[in-house]
Amino acid sequence: MTNDELEGGLGKLILSPTLLLNEEICRKNIKAMQEKAKASDLCLRPHFKTHVSKEIGDLFKEVGTSKITVSSLDMACYFEEDGWDDITLAFPVNIREIERINHLASRIKLHLVVENIEAIQYLSGHLKNSVFIRIKIDAGYGRTGVRYSEIEKIEELIIAIKKSNHLIFEGFLSHAGNSYEAQEKEEINTVHIELKERLLSLKKQLKEKYPEISLSIGDTPICSVVEDLSWADEIRPGNYVFYDVMQAFIGSCEYEDIAVAMACPIVAKHEEGNRLIIHGGAVHFARDFLIHPSTGKPFYGWVVSLDEGCIGEPDFWSHVSKLSQEHGTLSVTDEVFEKYRVGDIIGVLPIHSCMTANLMGEYLTFKGKRISRM
Amino acid sequence: MTNDELEGGLGKLILSPTLLLNEEICRKNIKAMQEKAKASDLCLRPHFKTHVSKEIGDLFKEVGTSKITVSSLDMACYFEEDGWDDITLAFPVNIREIERINHLASRIKLHLVVENIEAIQYLSGHLKNSVFIRIKIDAGYGRTGVRYSEIEKIEELIIAIKKSNHLIFEGFLSHAGNSYEAQEKEEINTVHIELKERLLSLKKQLKEKYPEISLSIGDTPICSVVEDLSWADEIRPGNYVFYDVMQAFIGSCEYEDIAVAMACPIVAKHEEGNRLIIHGGAVHFARDFLIHPSTGKPFYGWVVSLDEGCIGEPDFWSHVSKLSQEHGTLSVTDEVFEKYRVGDIIGVLPIHSCMTANLMGEYLTFKGKRISRM
Repeated sequence: MTNDELEGGLGKLILSPTLLLNEEICRKNIKAMQEKAKASDLCLRPHFKTHVSKEIGDLFKEVGTSKITVSSLDMACYFEEDGWDDITLAFPVNIREIERINHLASRIKLHLVVENIEAIQYLSGHLKNSVFIRIKIDAGYGRTGVRYSEIEKIEELIIAIKKSNHLIFEGFLSHAGNSYEAQEKEEINTVHIELKERLLSLKKQLKEKYPEISLSIGDTPICSVVEDLSWADEIRPGNYVFYDVMQAFIGSCEYEDIAVAMACPIVAKHEEGNRLIIHGGAVHFARDFLIHPSTGKPFYGWVVSLDEGCIGEPDFWSHVSKLSQEHGTLSVTDEVFEKYRVGDIIGVLPIHSCMTANLMGEYLTFKGKRISRM
Repeated sequence: MTNDELEGGLGKLILSPTLLLNEEICRKNIKAMQEKAKASDLCLRPHFKTHVSKEIGDLFKEVGTSKITVSSLDMACYFEEDGWDDITLAFPVNIREIERINHLASRIKLHLVVENIEAIQYLSGHLKNSVFIRIKIDAGYGRTGVRYSEIEKIEELIIAIKKSNHLIFEGFLSHAGNSYEAQEKEEINTVHIELKERLLSLKKQLKEKYPEISLSIGDTPICSVVEDLSWADEIRPGNYVFYDVMQAFIGSCEYEDIAVAMACPIVAKHEEGNRLIIHGGAVHFARDFLIHPSTGKPFYGWVVSLDEGCIGEPDFWSHVSKLSQEHGTLSVTDEVFEKYRVGDIIGVLPIHSCMTANLMGEYLTFKGKRISRM
């Protein structure tokens, strides 16, 4: 992509680091997950923390989505403003935010997540409206939640929940974040098998007493890779709306499924090491990295062609090798080095689209439409 | 800090992850650098990319600062709105932004940085007002800029600059970013000696022909540690306004000089591994890390007391051991584990205050005043 090719087109809109969105791919990803959930008779409650955009939320409405997941109360309030009225806040409840929780619970069907008696007692004493409650279960990830094996503790929480007028117990919620640490599809399957066995065993032990128990799981790798998830009741993947290099790396998606790319101006070229310097640093990309298969060093994104009015194929020999606050250093092939001039725009596929989109705060579609975020 | 102690105080304002600012320490840091520059008869042109706040800019005005540095055109425009009229954009000029450059140059004394003939020619052909120009010199950092040893290339750029009506050549600009990779004060001194020798040698070779050459350097480690910088003409440190754990690690500051701390709600406690789970993740802290001296693993901040209405001493046995998008995992001592309850606020000193402040977007002072960012 040279300035000449950009004249009169999208290039006029790209003056500084810009997050490009391919709306068609995004729609395709949204539709594919919806169909998969439907085929298995699962409730799909997509996680909106990746895009955090009312306009992109509309694309979900088009395929019939009516229930969503968010990871903060800010996001819940943002989407409630846009008419979403069935929202799960999939984060251990922060009792300091009780006032806004009460406000939200008076307006929508709000689902909260708890994992300790303190939060349940606090909610019990301070809620003014009913909320639905899931207990967060740690089924192997080891971040947070009650361990799947602590049946007594889990039952103690269920009893406390059911004692409260305003808390409606609906089951368990788990996030197999360890699927992101997989190196290949097979490992995602292994994480899934463990998750399934543990949650089903837990449910089996408690379902006679508590027949209302339903299971909510969610992470893009498992939801993308595993064919049959019908053992669960609800899935909450989020990243699949865009996917990214990390997901392609572990086998959740193909590169052609990635719906976002950074477009950054080149500000300098250095023949030593075939380096291109871009405006585009850690305040744009974030610092998520993967280990480069050839160099064994961290890299922060693949160079990708934007020539054809879409995100082209990534160039696995050209990558972001270094990031400082505003600068990015690309290490590229001779061909790429020759192709681009100072002032041109170059494309980069981000490692972790959730973090990049969070920093960029806005999307630009290939048709030139600007799409806002919270 | 418990909820009880917080009742009626600052705690009422801290419902979700919050970046606390100790305004007194901040003022002290600003004043100390100002006095140091004055003693060496140096122009101090502080880098405002760390705080990016008009209100914090006012604290600099109070000690007489009139010239500033920024790292993006957005920042330059933001501070121009607030009356700053002498601004260096210390980033290789992005020629795609020529329209806003022209707008800004019509209103203030604008200093730009170039490092290639393409940018000079483009500016030469498109500028409508005069701007001051420095050539970016790579004196050892290896990120970008013309290598200090390439005298011919540097002179070629000077000649091109001096040919243009609108470009006023004023000398060289260098950023010894390698000082951030130091492990201790001594290494910062080593980077400084190299920087000084290389830039002075360069100046010596060209000063007869171009007596206007002045030298602008800038990075917090060197400007904090080195006693005598009078060989340079201008310094551009930025991070010192807040400092952070990274600066304390390499010896740029003491822990008591750090002016910002995150305050995060605790949402869960896990006895296994003495873990506290906070609302506060990579979207709040960023992912900058250091290697923990004892565990040999990455850590993302020290736990710090906020009990006394100020940032207390860090607890080197309690740290942020893991970050996901919204969650932080703290690994803490028995004492800290016992002290805090679910719903309490806990303090964390950030690794890299520039990145954390960029994500947080706002400051709260210990007196309860909210301070905005761009």
